[in-house]
Amino acid sequence: MNIVILAAGMGKRMRSALPKVLHPLAGRPLLAHVIETARALSPERLVVVVGHGADKVREAVGAPDVQFAIQDKQLGTGHAVQQALPLLDPSVPTLVLYGDVPLTRASTLERLLDAAGTERYGVLTVTVDDPTGYGRIVRDASGAVRKIVEQKDASDEQRRIAEINTGIVVSPTRTLEAWLASLKNDNAQGEFYLTDVVERAIEAGVEVVTAQPDAEWETLGVNSKVQLAELERIHQRNVAHALLEAGVTLADPARIDVRGTLECGADVSIDVNCVFEGRVTLADNVSIGPNCVIRDASIGAGTRVDAYTHIEGGTTGAKVVLGPYARLRPGAVLGDEAHVGNFVEVKNAVMGHGAKANHLSYIGDSDIGARVNVGAGTITCNYDGANKHRTIVEDDVFIGSDTQLVAPVRVGRGVTIAAGTTVWKDVGEGELVLNEKRQVSRTGYVRPVKKKV
Amino acid sequence: MNIVILAAGMGKRMRSALPKVLHPLAGRPLLAHVIETARALSPERLVVVVGHGADKVREAVGAPDVQFAIQDKQLGTGHAVQQALPLLDPSVPTLVLYGDVPLTRASTLERLLDAAGTERYGVLTVTVDDPTGYGRIVRDASGAVRKIVEQKDASDEQRRIAEINTGIVVSPTRTLEAWLASLKNDNAQGEFYLTDVVERAIEAGVEVVTAQPDAEWETLGVNSKVQLAELERIHQRNVAHALLEAGVTLADPARIDVRGTLECGADVSIDVNCVFEGRVTLADNVSIGPNCVIRDASIGAGTRVDAYTHIEGGTTGAKVVLGPYARLRPGAVLGDEAHVGNFVEVKNAVMGHGAKANHLSYIGDSDIGARVNVGAGTITCNYDGANKHRTIVEDDVFIGSDTQLVAPVRVGRGVTIAAGTTVWKDVGEGELVLNEKRQVSRTGYVRPVKKKV
Amino acid sequence: MNIVILAAGMGKRMRSALPKVLHPLAGRPLLAHVIETARALSPERLVVVVGHGADKVREAVGAPDVQFAIQDKQLGTGHAVQQALPLLDPSVPTLVLYGDVPLTRASTLERLLDAAGTERYGVLTVTVDDPTGYGRIVRDASGAVRKIVEQKDASDEQRRIAEINTGIVVSPTRTLEAWLASLKNDNAQGEFYLTDVVERAIEAGVEVVTAQPDAEWETLGVNSKVQLAELERIHQRNVAHALLEAGVTLADPARIDVRGTLECGADVSIDVNCVFEGRVTLADNVSIGPNCVIRDASIGAGTRVDAYTHIEGGTTGAKVVLGPYARLRPGAVLGDEAHVGNFVEVKNAVMGHGAKANHLSYIGDSDIGARVNVGAGTITCNYDGANKHRTIVEDDVFIGSDTQLVAPVRVGRGVTIAAGTTVWKDVGEGELVLNEKRQVSRTGYVRPVKKKV
Repeated sequence: MNIVILAAGMGKRMRSALPKVLHPLAGRPLLAHVIETARALSPERLVVVVGHGADKVREAVGAPDVQFAIQDKQLGTGHAVQQALPLLDPSVPTLVLYGDVPLTRASTLERLLDAAGTERYGVLTVTVDDPTGYGRIVRDASGAVRKIVEQKDASDEQRRIAEINTGIVVSPTRTLEAWLASLKNDNAQGEFYLTDVVERAIEAGVEVVTAQPDAEWETLGVNSKVQLAELERIHQRNVAHALLEAGVTLADPARIDVRGTLECGADVSIDVNCVFEGRVTLADNVSIGPNCVIRDASIGAGTRVDAYTHIEGGTTGAKVVLGPYARLRPGAVLGDEAHVGNFVEVKNAVMGHGAKANHLSYIGDSDIGARVNVGAGTITCNYDGANKHRTIVEDDVFIGSDTQLVAPVRVGRGVTIAAGTTVWKDVGEGELVLNEKRQVSRTGYVRPVKKKV
Repeated sequence: MNIVILAAGMGKRMRSALPKVLHPLAGRPLLAHVIETARALSPERLVVVVGHGADKVREAVGAPDVQFAIQDKQLGTGHAVQQALPLLDPSVPTLVLYGDVPLTRASTLERLLDAAGTERYGVLTVTVDDPTGYGRIVRDASGAVRKIVEQKDASDEQRRIAEINTGIVVSPTRTLEAWLASLKNDNAQGEFYLTDVVERAIEAGVEVVTAQPDAEWETLGVNSKVQLAELERIHQRNVAHALLEAGVTLADPARIDVRGTLECGADVSIDVNCVFEGRVTLADNVSIGPNCVIRDASIGAGTRVDAYTHIEGGTTGAKVVLGPYARLRPGAVLGDEAHVGNFVEVKNAVMGHGAKANHLSYIGDSDIGARVNVGAGTITCNYDGANKHRTIVEDDVFIGSDTQLVAPVRVGRGVTIAAGTTVWKDVGEGELVLNEKRQVSRTGYVRPVKKKV
Repeated sequence: MNIVILAAGMGKRMRSALPKVLHPLAGRPLLAHVIETARALSPERLVVVVGHGADKVREAVGAPDVQFAIQDKQLGTGHAVQQALPLLDPSVPTLVLYGDVPLTRASTLERLLDAAGTERYGVLTVTVDDPTGYGRIVRDASGAVRKIVEQKDASDEQRRIAEINTGIVVSPTRTLEAWLASLKNDNAQGEFYLTDVVERAIEAGVEVVTAQPDAEWETLGVNSKVQLAELERIHQRNVAHALLEAGVTLADPARIDVRGTLECGADVSIDVNCVFEGRVTLADNVSIGPNCVIRDASIGAGTRVDAYTHIEGGTTGAKVVLGPYARLRPGAVLGDEAHVGNFVEVKNAVMGHGAKANHLSYIGDSDIGARVNVGAGTITCNYDGANKHRTIVEDDVFIGSDTQLVAPVRVGRGVTIAAGTTVWKDVGEGELVLNEKRQVSRTGYVRPVKKKV
C-alpha cells in the first residue's frame, strides 16, 4: 500500500519556532514515531506532506524510503492528501496517517488494512467516554456506516454516539483521487476536509469498514504542550509496563524515562528517577541506582551503577562498580571489575581489569592498565591548550593521590607514583617516581586576623 | 473594601512548633499566599487577625499595608473578625478570608464581591461530590439562600445538598459589627461562629448572594501535613499547566516544583525532577536537564544546563554550557559561551566570554577573563583563614591542571601556567609560570605488603 | 496459634532466577514482610513452607523462631500446608499466610483470629469492585458462608457476588489435618487446594466465620513485576501517609522511598525524590533537600542536608550542614556545626565541632579536630597500595588548598599548612608547614598550535 503522513501544519498552539511534528516525544520527533510505525507496515510508497518548516522537517526525518510532497497553503487535510497523489502508486490502497498522532500501533493499522482490503474504504474509529467535539460515526440499523457528523452539525441523538472518527483512513487510491477532486471548501474555515471523502465513498456505493485501536491513546494527537506532555507520559507508562513484563524490576514505573531503546538482561533492577537515552544495553544482574542518567551505553553483567551516575557513551565489562557521582563520557571503556567512584570523570579512556579510580579524578584520553590504583585527585593533563595527548599507564601501577600525568606520557608496569607528583617524562617499569620535595616547618607564623568590613 | 484574614489558629494537627499559617506552600507561608491574593483586590484596609505565634506571624508577613489585630483567646471565627473591627473602614464592605486557605483565586473573590456589592451579604459556596461534614446551603423554591445547616443539624434531605459553605464571606461592615455582637456561643465548642451571621442577615432582610469558584481546590484549607501536601501538589500541577500553556516543554508535569517565579522565554525545555526556587528567568531556547535545582538565577538564551546542576544565585550569558554536576553560587556571572563542567563550583566570580572550567575546580572570588582555560583541579585559594581575597586571571590565560592560585594574585593576559603550579605572586603578560620541579625515579622500591588483621 | 507461610512457589511470571518470595519490596524480601507480620501475632510456631530455591529462602530469612518445611513437588496449597503439619502444635489453631502477599496488616489478621477463636474456621474475605477471576463467597439467607465458588464454576448470579476469598484462613489444627488428608486433586491442575477445605468444615458442621481487611491492597499478591511495582507504590504511599500524619513535611508524598525504618523528630522536612534505606533517624528540625539518598544514618537536630547528598552510614551532630553533593560513608562522624560541602567524601573519619571541608576533598581514615578548616582539594592519602593508615589533624588547624596528608601522619594543634603542600611527616603545634617552592616565570614560551587532523 501507499502511506501518506500529513505533516504540514504549523501548530500555533505549541507556541514554538519548531514545526509541530518535530517536537520530541521520548527524545524523537513526533513525526519520526509515525514514520517508524509506517515502516513497520512495509508500504510501497511512503510520502510525507510538508508545509510549515518544510526544510527543517525534511532534514530531521529525511531518508531514502521517504518522499516529500509540498503543501504550500494549508487548505485542509483533503488538499494535503491531494499533494501526495502524484507520488503514489494508484494500483494499491492509500493509508493516511498524521504526523502529530505518534502512538498508533502498527497492529491497529493492520487491522484497519485487513478490514478494508483493496476495495473498501476504511476508517479507524474509537469509542470514547466523552465524544464532545469529535465527528460521530453514524450507523444504520444494520451497523453499516452511514456518515460522519461533526459536533456542530450533530442532532442531540447523534451527540450521544460515543464512536468517533480518528481521521485515519485507508482508501483505494484511484477513487480517492476522484473523491478528493470533488471536495468542496464551503465551510467556515474554507478548507477541504479529508473527512468528507467518506460521503463520496458511500454515495459511490463503496463499502465503508471500520477498525478500532486497543487503546484510546493510540489516536490522540498533539496540538499543545499540554497534550505533548500527556502523550509523553502515556508513552513512558507503556515503556515501563513493557519492561516490567519482560522481568525488569522498576522501583517506580511512573519515574523512569526511556528515550530510545533500553535492552535489559535477566534480573535487572532500576531504581527511581532514572533517564535512559539513545541505545542502552544492561546485561544480566545489572542494578541501576536512583537518579542516574544513561545514554548510549553498554553495561556488563553484574555491574552496579550507584546513584547520580551520568553516562553519555561508555562500555563496561562485568562486575564493574560505578558511582555514586561517576561520569563516563564517550569512549570510556571499563574492564571487568573496574571501579569508577565519586566525582570521577572518564573520557575516551580504557581502564583495565580491576583498575580503580575511586575519588575526585579526571581520566581523559588514557589507557589505564589492569589493577592500576588511581589515587584521589589524579588528573591526566591531556590538553596543552591546542591538542589532546594520550596517557599510558601500564598494569599494576600505583598512582599516588593528587598526581598530574602530563600527556603524552607513559608510565611503565608496576611503577609507584608518590602523592602530589607531576609526571611529565616517561617512567620505566617498576620505578618509584616523585618530585623531590622538602617538608619545611616554620615557627612564629601569625595567622591573619579578620578585617573589619 | 476591607479584607480580614483569620490567622490566629494553632493548627494542632500540623504537629509542629510553627504556627499553622506559616507552613510553607511552594516555598512561602500559607498566609503569604492569602495576603498576595488579598492585595490583588486592592483593599482599603488589610487586617490579619493573629493569635497563636503572633510574633512569628507578624515577623514573617509584616508589611506596611498589613495591619494586625490580636485574638488572645481562640473563641471562634466570629470573635476573631470582631477583633479586626476597630481597624476597618465601616463605610465599605468587609471580605473575610482564611490564612490556611491559600489557593483561592482573586477572580473568584471578585465574582463574590461583584455579586454582593455594597449592600448584600455574600457567601462563597462550592458544589462538591461529597458534602459530608460541611455546612449545607439551604435555598428556598426561588433559589434564595434560606440558611446554612451544619452536618450535625441537617435532615436527611438537607444532607443530600451538595452545595456547601466555604466560610469566605463579604458583608456590609456596619451591619456586620452589629450581627457579630449578637452572636451566641451556646454550642459544644463554646465558640462564636462567623457562619451564624448569615442568619442575622436573613432575619434583617438583607439579601444573601453566593458565588462559586472555578475549582473546588480553591476552597480547600490546611489542617494537617496530609492536606498541606495535597495542596502543594495541586498548586504545582497548576503551575506546571500554566508553563505548558505558555509553551514550555515539560518532560513530566508531575515532576517539576516551582517555589517562587519562573519566567521562561520561547522554546524552553525542562527535563524531569527539577526544582526552581526564588526568582528564576530562563531565556529563549534554554534547556534544563534532569534533576537540576535552580534558585535565584537568570539563564541566558540557548544555554544548556545539564543534569544535577545546582544554582543558588547566578547569571549566565547566552549559549553557556553548565554541568553535569556544576554548581553556581551567589555572585557567579558567566559570559556568553562559557562552560562550567562536572564537579566545578563557582562562587562570587566572573567568567568571561568563552572561558571554560570543565572539571573538578573551585573558582571563588575571582575574575576570569575571556577564553581562559581553567585546567582540571584548579583551585583559587581565596581564604587565608580570616579574610577572602580576589584572584584576577586576564584574558587568554591557560591554567594547567591542579594549579593553586593563592589570592590576592593577578595573572596577566596570555599567561600559561604549568600543571601542578602554586601561584602566589603576580604573573606578567604572556609569561610561562611554573614551580621548578625535578621528576626523580628510583629503583628498588618495594611496595608495602598487606598486613594481616 | 501456629502460623504457616506458604513460600514454595517458583513465580515463573517474575522472569527471574530469584525465588518469588525473595523479591524485595521496600528493600526487603516479600517473605520478610509476611514473617514480620506473623511475629507481631506472637505465634507459638512459625513455619515457612519452602520449595523452589529452598536454600536461598532459608538463608535469606532464617531465624531461630522460624522453622522450615519442605514441599518438594508443587502439588497445591493444600498439599503445602500438609508439609507443615508435623511442625505444628495440634492443640492451637493454625493461620495460613502467603509469602507473596506482603501487605496484610496484623490488625486485620487479629480480627480474623478473634472471629474464629479456637473452634471455628475463619476465612479472610474482601469485597471488591471487580471480582472477576476470584473465588466468590456464597452465603445463605442468614448470612452464613455456604461455600466458595471459583470463577469457572460460578453461575451468573454468583459471579455478581463482590465478596471474594483471599486464601488466608485459620482453622483448628487437628480437624485441618483430617480435612487436608481428604482433599482430592481431580481438577485441571491436578493440585490439592486449601480453598476446598472450607467445604469440609461446612460438611462437618463447623461454623465458618469471616473478617475483612481495612483495605483491599492488604490482600494483593505478587505474581509479576507489574504487581510487585504496584505493591511497592502502595506500600510507599502508606509510609508517606504515616510520615505526614506524624507531622513530617513531605514536598511530594508520591516521591519518597523508604526501605527500612525512618524515624523523624519534630518539624522535619523532606524535599522531593529522596530515598531512605536501612535505619535512618532524623532529629528535630532536620531538613533534607531534593534527591538525597540516605542509608543507615543518624542526623542531628537542626542539620541541613542539601541536594544530592549521599549517605551510607554516618552520624552527624546538631546544626551540621551537608551538601550539596556531599558523600558520607560508613564511619563518618561529624560534630556539631561541622560542614561537609560539595564534592567532598568522608569515610571512616571523625570531624570535630565546627570543622569544615567545603570543597572537593577526600577525608578518609582520619580524625579532624574542632574548627579545622580543610581547604579545597585536600586529600588524605590513607592507602599505600596495601594498607590503610590514619591521619590525625588536631584542633584549629588550617589546611591550605590542595594539600596531601600522607598517612600515617599527625598535624599538631593550630598548625597552618600552605596551599599545595605534601605533608608526610608529623607537624608540631602551631607551626607553619610547606614544601619550599619557587615560582618561576619564563618569557618566550610559545603555545602549541592546533594540529590539523
